[in-house]
Amino acid sequence: MIQVGIVGGTGYTGVELLRLLASHPQVEVSVITSRAEAGVAVADLYPSLRGHFDLAFSVPDVDVLSQCDAVFFATPHGVAQAMMPQLISRGVRVIDLSADFRIRDKALWEQWYNQEHACPELIDKAVYGLPEVNREAIAQAQLVACPGCYPTATQLGLIPLLEKNLVDPSDLVVNAASGASGAGRQGKIDNLLAEVSDSFKAYAGGGHRHLPEIEQGLTDVQPAGAAEVSVTFVPHLLPMIRGIHATSYANLIDTSLSEAELHALFVERYVDEPFVDVLPLGVHPQTRTVKSSNVCRISIFRPQGKGKVVVLSVIDNLTKGASGQAIQNLNIMFGFDEKAGLNQIALLP
Amino acid sequence: MIQVGIVGGTGYTGVELLRLLASHPQVEVSVITSRAEAGVAVADLYPSLRGHFDLAFSVPDVDVLSQCDAVFFATPHGVAQAMMPQLISRGVRVIDLSADFRIRDKALWEQWYNQEHACPELIDKAVYGLPEVNREAIAQAQLVACPGCYPTATQLGLIPLLEKNLVDPSDLVVNAASGASGAGRQGKIDNLLAEVSDSFKAYAGGGHRHLPEIEQGLTDVQPAGAAEVSVTFVPHLLPMIRGIHATSYANLIDTSLSEAELHALFVERYVDEPFVDVLPLGVHPQTRTVKSSNVCRISIFRPQGKGKVVVLSVIDNLTKGASGQAIQNLNIMFGFDEKAGLNQIALLP
Amino acid sequence: MIQVGIVGGTGYTGVELLRLLASHPQVEVSVITSRAEAGVAVADLYPSLRGHFDLAFSVPDVDVLSQCDAVFFATPHGVAQAMMPQLISRGVRVIDLSADFRIRDKALWEQWYNQEHACPELIDKAVYGLPEVNREAIAQAQLVACPGCYPTATQLGLIPLLEKNLVDPSDLVVNAASGASGAGRQGKIDNLLAEVSDSFKAYAGGGHRHLPEIEQGLTDVQPAGAAEVSVTFVPHLLPMIRGIHATSYANLIDTSLSEAELHALFVERYVDEPFVDVLPLGVHPQTRTVKSSNVCRISIFRPQGKGKVVVLSVIDNLTKGASGQAIQNLNIMFGFDEKAGLNQIALLP
Amino acid sequence: MIQVGIVGGTGYTGVELLRLLASHPQVEVSVITSRAEAGVAVADLYPSLRGHFDLAFSVPDVDVLSQCDAVFFATPHGVAQAMMPQLISRGVRVIDLSADFRIRDKALWEQWYNQEHACPELIDKAVYGLPEVNREAIAQAQLVACPGCYPTATQLGLIPLLEKNLVDPSDLVVNAASGASGAGRQGKIDNLLAEVSDSFKAYAGGGHRHLPEIEQGLTDVQPAGAAEVSVTFVPHLLPMIRGIHATSYANLIDTSLSEAELHALFVERYVDEPFVDVLPLGVHPQTRTVKSSNVCRISIFRPQGKGKVVVLSVIDNLTKGASGQAIQNLNIMFGFDEKAGLNQIALLP
Repeated sequence: MIQVGIVGGTGYTGVELLRLLASHPQVEVSVITSRAEAGVAVADLYPSLRGHFDLAFSVPDVDVLSQCDAVFFATPHGVAQAMMPQLISRGVRVIDLSADFRIRDKALWEQWYNQEHACPELIDKAVYGLPEVNREAIAQAQLVACPGCYPTATQLGLIPLLEKNLVDPSDLVVNAASGASGAGRQGKIDNLLAEVSDSFKAYAGGGHRHLPEIEQGLTDVQPAGAAEVSVTFVPHLLPMIRGIHATSYANLIDTSLSEAELHALFVERYVDEPFVDVLPLGVHPQTRTVKSSNVCRISIFRPQGKGKVVVLSVIDNLTKGASGQAIQNLNIMFGFDEKAGLNQIALLP
Repeated sequence: MIQVGIVGGTGYTGVELLRLLASHPQVEVSVITSRAEAGVAVADLYPSLRGHFDLAFSVPDVDVLSQCDAVFFATPHGVAQAMMPQLISRGVRVIDLSADFRIRDKALWEQWYNQEHACPELIDKAVYGLPEVNREAIAQAQLVACPGCYPTATQLGLIPLLEKNLVDPSDLVVNAASGASGAGRQGKIDNLLAEVSDSFKAYAGGGHRHLPEIEQGLTDVQPAGAAEVSVTFVPHLLPMIRGIHATSYANLIDTSLSEAELHALFVERYVDEPFVDVLPLGVHPQTRTVKSSNVCRISIFRPQGKGKVVVLSVIDNLTKGASGQAIQNLNIMFGFDEKAGLNQIALLP
Repeated sequence: MIQVGIVGGTGYTGVELLRLLASHPQVEVSVITSRAEAGVAVADLYPSLRGHFDLAFSVPDVDVLSQCDAVFFATPHGVAQAMMPQLISRGVRVIDLSADFRIRDKALWEQWYNQEHACPELIDKAVYGLPEVNREAIAQAQLVACPGCYPTATQLGLIPLLEKNLVDPSDLVVNAASGASGAGRQGKIDNLLAEVSDSFKAYAGGGHRHLPEIEQGLTDVQPAGAAEVSVTFVPHLLPMIRGIHATSYANLIDTSLSEAELHALFVERYVDEPFVDVLPLGVHPQTRTVKSSNVCRISIFRPQGKGKVVVLSVIDNLTKGASGQAIQNLNIMFGFDEKAGLNQIALLP
Repeated sequence: MIQVGIVGGTGYTGVELLRLLASHPQVEVSVITSRAEAGVAVADLYPSLRGHFDLAFSVPDVDVLSQCDAVFFATPHGVAQAMMPQLISRGVRVIDLSADFRIRDKALWEQWYNQEHACPELIDKAVYGLPEVNREAIAQAQLVACPGCYPTATQLGLIPLLEKNLVDPSDLVVNAASGASGAGRQGKIDNLLAEVSDSFKAYAGGGHRHLPEIEQGLTDVQPAGAAEVSVTFVPHLLPMIRGIHATSYANLIDTSLSEAELHALFVERYVDEPFVDVLPLGVHPQTRTVKSSNVCRISIFRPQGKGKVVVLSVIDNLTKGASGQAIQNLNIMFGFDEKAGLNQIALLP
């Protein structure tokens, strides 16, 4: 049984960590922090947790957090950076759900996040926490930077194609849609039910922060000599709470590859992955089939036999797209069963 | 490890049984029936179950079902009656989620369900499966009739008052609302998203089949000499999938009872119940705090100090209102931990 | 063609006034105020209005507003009070959508709204703007206080019974539910899609500000000698944008009245009302059948022939429950066709 | 005042025609047909129409329909074909909302709709009813084939680019999403609230019937010598009732064109169109800003200055995507003001 801490526990990824960790046989949550809610019982803020956690939120304290075996950061970007050096120097293993250490190019990070990076010396130490690509490095890591929600769905959908250089990497289109929980638990007019329910829209048409992360991740899996990755990424907002759906379009380099061959390739790539499920040919993934679960489901189409391959991939943005993947990383880091605490079946209907 | 069968597995209570039983340490589902989908893999109909069940639907067969230790009926009313005599005579223990054996008065059943009862000789054998009232009888029962969804929420909300004759039983008002999954998985225009989303309505204003069940259940807990129970029950349809909310109104007989005293009474009544949670004074239950869980959460108000007590109770209609409660009954019948397979935390947000 | 002003135009009742007034043949909106959005074009904040209004928001200015024939206040309570004396003294006719002048008992208002009333001298001048009761007084009024959304639905449902003293006024139960737009356009966590979508809850169980307004309005229509009105009112929050549904329960004094007789009474009461529609016996109102329209639809049930009458009434909270009713009042005040600008058919599906 | 008939009036496009025509100053609906609901009052099926229409559904009868000045077909594909020859020969002007006469290539139609065309001799007579392209031909037409919902949103978004050959027509990606009303008013499990609410999915990944229509329409506007149009079109299902959002991606031929220049081009193209609104640079369209209105709103992005142009276009699938556009065509055919009956402002919130 290890002791873990959660920094920034009042947001949706915080409560999702608690929901999942409650059934983890080897993990005990010993501290959860929130400046705003310090002193409030977790179960008072989230009645769904009544009877499962006796914890109260506390002000973040490095000394207390240092006594944990692992600490999750479920904070907005910019927060983890500030506390990271102290925790790292004390030997705590850290799983950061925020964007602080996802981008290896400091200048690129600062450009997209519009602020200076507070501890650039730790950027290189961070392992990008996509287990399907970096499992071994994650096992050894002290600092894991969990992928963003869109990047998780997108990369899992495109990696099999990029790894084998089957598509033109310079012309990738990713049309993605997310449930409203992705915007977090903040009192903004733009996220009111009366504003975003019963409607659909694209946003960040000029550029979304997850784009450089997607391009970096896809570049990482390319074979030597492949052309440069360039993605057009347009996110959309769904009138529902949980779920991400990525529809990715790529041009086949070798147009003789059939839909069935492409499908077989995906099946083979993920056959040993506990949380990636390639659906049978012709079946479309639905976000509800992964709601509350850590699974990514993927389908492949090659419509009308044209040179375009279409990949559909769905995740729950709060689970495989955030807290579930963070726990998957924890399990890898500590040598636990990778599925520990992550056996939830999607809630359907 | 016991073997269980599920009759009528394609509906929402069927897939909910599978979702919950997947994590039950002492139960294996060995057979699941559906005439319409015979031969189809369960995971093909419900992709959320991929990787969790290898079962296929089969045509219902008494010989096969008789080999199970227990059989769940997740069928529309009228179906369980037809197969029940054979299963009962072969010693199988049966948990019926349908309405077939809930009403002890045969004539009353036939009046509300508008058909003849097919095996009236078994009505008396059936134990009404509300563990908070009948736990000991359930443990001994061969045939358990699981309560309806509205009756579960309503009875749990009113029982503490009726048991002690604190309110006038002859003037109870129950205003309840249910998510659309309560109407089942049937292709009816009335249940289309385009019909019931973004709208709210009462239905069955002239009388709903759950009314006689509610009145029977409340009568059962009354002390000797109490007045006759009479309930005005109006159900409503919510534009969402899961959840029941019952708002019950009753007139206090002794108006000197304070809100705090009433609250204390509820806390005391349910202190040992694993699945009933009385919220702190002043907190309102939300259906999302029980979504996907087997919990009923309850609040008590006495507005403006008038003689009226208002009880708010919420459940997930597919869990505590159907399949979760059915498994709770199974656990009691077989001497398992009553919470086995039912540890899910509500999915929030 | 009259000139009207709107104070507090950025909220949902403000944009609803604009949507409706755009088709009003005798009204021109000449000024719309907002301190926060001063200088912003209305159509930039609400793109749905592009091509319909060239207005920009301006800082509220009594001199400018005084040049209008009529001014609507679409502000939170407390705001209209502050500007009212100046406007009234300059002879402007005012239609206040807020709660400032709804309650005639100053002490009661101050108790429920928890602040001192800023111009008690005008309370008596205000006419309560429920046309179905006060049409003649409205026609002469300089200051009209528009009813709240819940009070509109509730009173229209109960007035025919109270007017004739057919039910016990001392034991009325009103169980109501509202769409989330009722909470206004404010950036509060409690109103986020991720918080209130896919869930249902009661709120204000201890008492809601619309209660004294309901009791006052029902008392006003009672015949001499009737018993005192006492209402138990519990509001609920629906996971949708627009719509109010009130389910009202009352005990018949004369239990020989049949459902059909009660229905005939309602039909007769409202036969000449342009915006109240009594549905045929047995039909349940749905909020979607009034969405975007100024209509209130009503049904009457007497379940199981018990002594309880159940009235179901629905409105669109932003239309008949606010801005539509405000325009109906304007039409009455200025001698226009009462339906001018209010011919919208409900948006269904 | 002309007399119009509606064939197939029980579906969502039928009730939408009624909603809109109720406010049309020059049109009277004299007959509305439905075999299944013959004899039922329109307002009994759709209570939102109470007080607006006294019509009842009748069995379709060519003699009766022939007395109309115009007939709308709001039927599934295959129905209009069967009655068309008789109506056309009697001189009735017909506006077909179905797919029967949209595709000029008979073989292509039969391939995608999987049935023989019943009156191929009339295909050439049909004018494709997209006013922004064919206004003059529509004015003269006896038979107008109204565009599909996806094709309307897609073509309006891409036409300005295709007309001037600014993008590579051989590599167009259209990622579109529709509300559930697009599936019509049919009792199918796949469209239940409990199935499609709170979820998102692509469908018809292998090919959707609107694809050949889109490719035909885009080809029609190309200048001589342009390359062949080829579209990859993937539709998705939104958990809401109304709205279509098309996100279209194309590769600029001349990459020196700036985002502002592209925007100016769109503004210029549609400056005189009453129902196409090009939003300011940087503003994203939302489906709610066109809900219940006949407007198409469009935005143009050129993300990261790459060679890709992204066009966002939204319509209400039942209005500009069906019944509203049909009335717009009627107005053009009969020389009415093109906006008659179509002045509704989008319902927001």
